[in-house]
Amino acid sequence: MRMELTEDELIAAISRLLSGSQPGVVVGVGDDAAVLEPGRGQQVLTTDLLIEGVHFERASISPRDLGAKAVTVNVSDVAAMGGSPRAAVAGIGLAPDVEAAWVMELYGGMRDACAEYALSLVGGDTNRADLVVVSVTVVGEVSPGRAVTRSGARTGDAIVVTGALGAAAGGLALSRSQPATMTTALSKPWGRALLDALARPIARVGEGQTLAQSGAHAMMDLSDGLAKDLSRLCLASGVGARIELDAVPVAEPLRAGAASLGVDALELALAGGEDYELVATLDPPDAEAARRVLDERFGVTLATVGTIIDGEGVVAVGDDGRETPLGSMGWDHFA
Amino acid sequence: MRMELTEDELIAAISRLLSGSQPGVVVGVGDDAAVLEPGRGQQVLTTDLLIEGVHFERASISPRDLGAKAVTVNVSDVAAMGGSPRAAVAGIGLAPDVEAAWVMELYGGMRDACAEYALSLVGGDTNRADLVVVSVTVVGEVSPGRAVTRSGARTGDAIVVTGALGAAAGGLALSRSQPATMTTALSKPWGRALLDALARPIARVGEGQTLAQSGAHAMMDLSDGLAKDLSRLCLASGVGARIELDAVPVAEPLRAGAASLGVDALELALAGGEDYELVATLDPPDAEAARRVLDERFGVTLATVGTIIDGEGVVAVGDDGRETPLGSMGWDHFA
Repeated sequence: MRMELTEDELIAAISRLLSGSQPGVVVGVGDDAAVLEPGRGQQVLTTDLLIEGVHFERASISPRDLGAKAVTVNVSDVAAMGGSPRAAVAGIGLAPDVEAAWVMELYGGMRDACAEYALSLVGGDTNRADLVVVSVTVVGEVSPGRAVTRSGARTGDAIVVTGALGAAAGGLALSRSQPATMTTALSKPWGRALLDALARPIARVGEGQTLAQSGAHAMMDLSDGLAKDLSRLCLASGVGARIELDAVPVAEPLRAGAASLGVDALELALAGGEDYELVATLDPPDAEAARRVLDERFGVTLATVGTIIDGEGVVAVGDDGRETPLGSMGWDHFA
Repeated sequence: MRMELTEDELIAAISRLLSGSQPGVVVGVGDDAAVLEPGRGQQVLTTDLLIEGVHFERASISPRDLGAKAVTVNVSDVAAMGGSPRAAVAGIGLAPDVEAAWVMELYGGMRDACAEYALSLVGGDTNRADLVVVSVTVVGEVSPGRAVTRSGARTGDAIVVTGALGAAAGGLALSRSQPATMTTALSKPWGRALLDALARPIARVGEGQTLAQSGAHAMMDLSDGLAKDLSRLCLASGVGARIELDAVPVAEPLRAGAASLGVDALELALAGGEDYELVATLDPPDAEAARRVLDERFGVTLATVGTIIDGEGVVAVGDDGRETPLGSMGWDHFA
């Protein structure tokens, strides 16, 4: 790192940033391990690794957004089980040209997201590396026996999706566009909204709990696109799915900007990653009840996009009645 | 990666490797998050990031050893609080030239260590990357109010160390030595013992619990060397320490190989990293009681190496009575 700080000095600076007593935290940052008061339910545990050059480029994301995103994507996984996040730990690798101020902003972003979702950042492991790596693990809790897995979908279930899809993929397309396109886009609300969606995803914690309480049989978060993630849910549940393309909720800013960006909005809504919305399957009356609660309590739309069917794979049905298999779409980390 | 597997196929292969019901695990590998039955005590949480080129070179560690080590160093952190490990999650970055068999061995090593320390590997996140990154987080539990931090050392405490020190640093020196030295060393028990100490460290879980139950006021594991880590413990506790150099337990294979390796055995025992032994401070009678229990129950030596004193910093006292400050020794990850 480009800084006159030893490891101990950097860690002391980070500890000061993260200090202050937090509810339920017995031992926080700075010891061999963190210690938390016992939770009231079953424990939920998830980890995500963000690697420079794969998941982000330092030139196109601020350290504050990167830190917030590293926490949020894990919170989203806890939400997808119907759980509540409680605490996070971070393992950080820092490239030689990273400055101390950048590191502090990174931790500041993690702290922002922890404040937003009411969890505590309780520890970390900071190292030098040849590139920037941000690994966050979140622990949470869920009412005993109430966790919603990917494998419970049943034939006849309604398939529902929170919010709208494709905005993060639109933001990615915009961030890779020509300078002239970027200049135009930044003068429009849709341009800023797409970049925001990519930089600051929102985890659907309350929504996930509502869906779990409404009787969701299966649920997961959309990190790799509806087509691919729903295929995974179907595979885990041993069922198939039929999606009405008309019913897929395309993000409004993506619709507004698609022509300027030269992208197909529906395709990005189906295949684009990083939306962090939730897909769930429920008995149709339960889906309708959940829709009303989400609208009233969170102002969030719940769209019914299709039905779980016997068989395997996901097929999309257009307004002309034509069926297209969707399983091969979506973002593959190894592609 | 050099393999004809998509992300989903690789993850399915890993899931098969890690499948099988495990006690206390409600949802294991393959969902958005793992779910565990509630523990009986307070929760312990720790994470460690191992990065290629910083913490290991792929040419000099087998994937099986790397996987085992990534789990063990976290288990050691839980041990240093006086806790028991329960479950692990792993975030893995895989370089383009890594083969599928290498990945399976890496997970096999993690599974080995989880079996050895009786914890469950319940989830992960596997990604491509420009280099290999292994990030493991371990959750554990500790009896309420019984976690031993770094900050409780008191003037007059005996400073104790489990096992013997410097073997991993000796292994590192050997792994970097001339081919002729390596050939000689590999024909001797000390040579193989030093390489083993580096490749397969042992976490002192039962020993940590014994020290906690014996009334340890402060404890930590030795990842960066006694000089540096004891300085951290003293800083956290607001005390100083006085170490008798004669009493420092130098690992026998290091003593045997030091001349061949051209290293100072005592220096490596004080400043070498990655031993993962525990240092603790207790009332002297409690230290003596703990020593007997560790010997009887685990066959592990507990050496009293010095005393906590008023003031700050660590001084070493030689057999000539000369005092040397030790604070500046030890391995700095940023050095």
